[in-house]
Amino acid sequence: MKTIVVIGAGNVASHLAPAIDATGAGRVTQVYSRTYESAEALARKLPGAVAICNIDEIQEDADVYLISLSDDAIVPFLNKLPLGIGRNALWLHTSGSVGMEVLSQVTDRYGVFYPLQTFSKNVELDINAVPLFIEGNTEEVEREIREFGEKVFKGIYYADSELRRKMHIAAVFACNFTNYLWIQASELLEKEGLPFDVLKPLLEETLRKSFDIGPLNAQTGPARRGDRKVTEIHKSMLEGEKSYLYGILSDSIINRYHPGEVS
Amino acid sequence: MKTIVVIGAGNVASHLAPAIDATGAGRVTQVYSRTYESAEALARKLPGAVAICNIDEIQEDADVYLISLSDDAIVPFLNKLPLGIGRNALWLHTSGSVGMEVLSQVTDRYGVFYPLQTFSKNVELDINAVPLFIEGNTEEVEREIREFGEKVFKGIYYADSELRRKMHIAAVFACNFTNYLWIQASELLEKEGLPFDVLKPLLEETLRKSFDIGPLNAQTGPARRGDRKVTEIHKSMLEGEKSYLYGILSDSIINRYHPGEVS
Repeated sequence: MKTIVVIGAGNVASHLAPAIDATGAGRVTQVYSRTYESAEALARKLPGAVAICNIDEIQEDADVYLISLSDDAIVPFLNKLPLGIGRNALWLHTSGSVGMEVLSQVTDRYGVFYPLQTFSKNVELDINAVPLFIEGNTEEVEREIREFGEKVFKGIYYADSELRRKMHIAAVFACNFTNYLWIQASELLEKEGLPFDVLKPLLEETLRKSFDIGPLNAQTGPARRGDRKVTEIHKSMLEGEKSYLYGILSDSIINRYHPGEVS
Repeated sequence: MKTIVVIGAGNVASHLAPAIDATGAGRVTQVYSRTYESAEALARKLPGAVAICNIDEIQEDADVYLISLSDDAIVPFLNKLPLGIGRNALWLHTSGSVGMEVLSQVTDRYGVFYPLQTFSKNVELDINAVPLFIEGNTEEVEREIREFGEKVFKGIYYADSELRRKMHIAAVFACNFTNYLWIQASELLEKEGLPFDVLKPLLEETLRKSFDIGPLNAQTGPARRGDRKVTEIHKSMLEGEKSYLYGILSDSIINRYHPGEVS
């Protein structure tokens, strides 16, 4: 079985390392972190792993080195790494926005192992359902990465830097911008003394339906119906940013579903 | 136990009537619909109910008449209703946007019984978790509505027409506009040959987190970090509506979290 050194003990590593161990994709032998406490907290969950916080203690002969550090910490870590460690091994990082080439200074076999999910240390989730995006510096390396990932993930996709960037943009629309609209909704409710939670069942069902029949078919609401009477009343009841965003988004929806009707 | 006549056999009635029966909030004795088939399809799920499609067959002496028709169908139905039916009964409708006063032509005791959820006939959901918004024409009637609703719903809130309209606006932001952003995301992925489903685990976790810690704390992404370098690259990679919406929403987020930094 492959031996794995995990570099980092943050949110991603905390979900990934136990899944690698549990599925038999590999055996994690070391967890490195800058502080012993965090390395130890993760190593405790891995029967065959020891915690280390000294970069010189990283073993030289593991099969895979999996770097799961924050984007800005990857290159500084590599620059401090003693020469020769894992020279013939497969090196991977889990970042969606750092190119794989940064790893070329330590090995000839490297790639990206990027699970598209937001991880929180204390929130359990079904990692198998998370899509994994991979890239390898050669076809052979990519095949190796895919085989390694298949034990843990159900859906594995190829994505180079360009495609990862486009996925990031899609995720900004799907998650960041929508969360911002939830802020608007929660503030409108709060003003009326209602908790944001009153929207929870509706939102969960909206999300379910959107994935079930596709968002284009799932669109509802006054703008979707082209009901300008209602959208104008709504807009007039709002102020500032909320009124502005309501108008922009309603016009956008009307324009798509009722082209030529936007005044 | 209260006897209930259910008027309508659509999505809302199909979830509400069985829940009323099952929780012992009342016993549904009749289901009226314009077509016998749809009335029968619902009545079949209610041990004590008969299906009717003739308005003259509606019983005169039920305790509660629950109108669950589309918004536009409520007043035409009431206008066709034979005089005297349910004169002393409690009349309710389940619409979020129709005022309760339309019911004053048939009874002195009336109100609104509005569950904030989007129902689909063949999708099971936990109706108990759905928030119920009620309004009654007198305090006594409102108390009666609340007692009736408490058997089925966990969270019951008072909402007059004005508040229901504001909730509707909040729901437009939270559900309609967000679904529209999911359309943008799905189109961006589609162009790269990726299914919208790759975003599902991320979106479910984003939603969970937003309700867990509140959307204001849950906001992430380049605009949240004030990272104009990334938002400008993203915007330049997009065209038309997508570029426009990306710019508007990013500026809005930057302006909120980093006031004074929007150029």
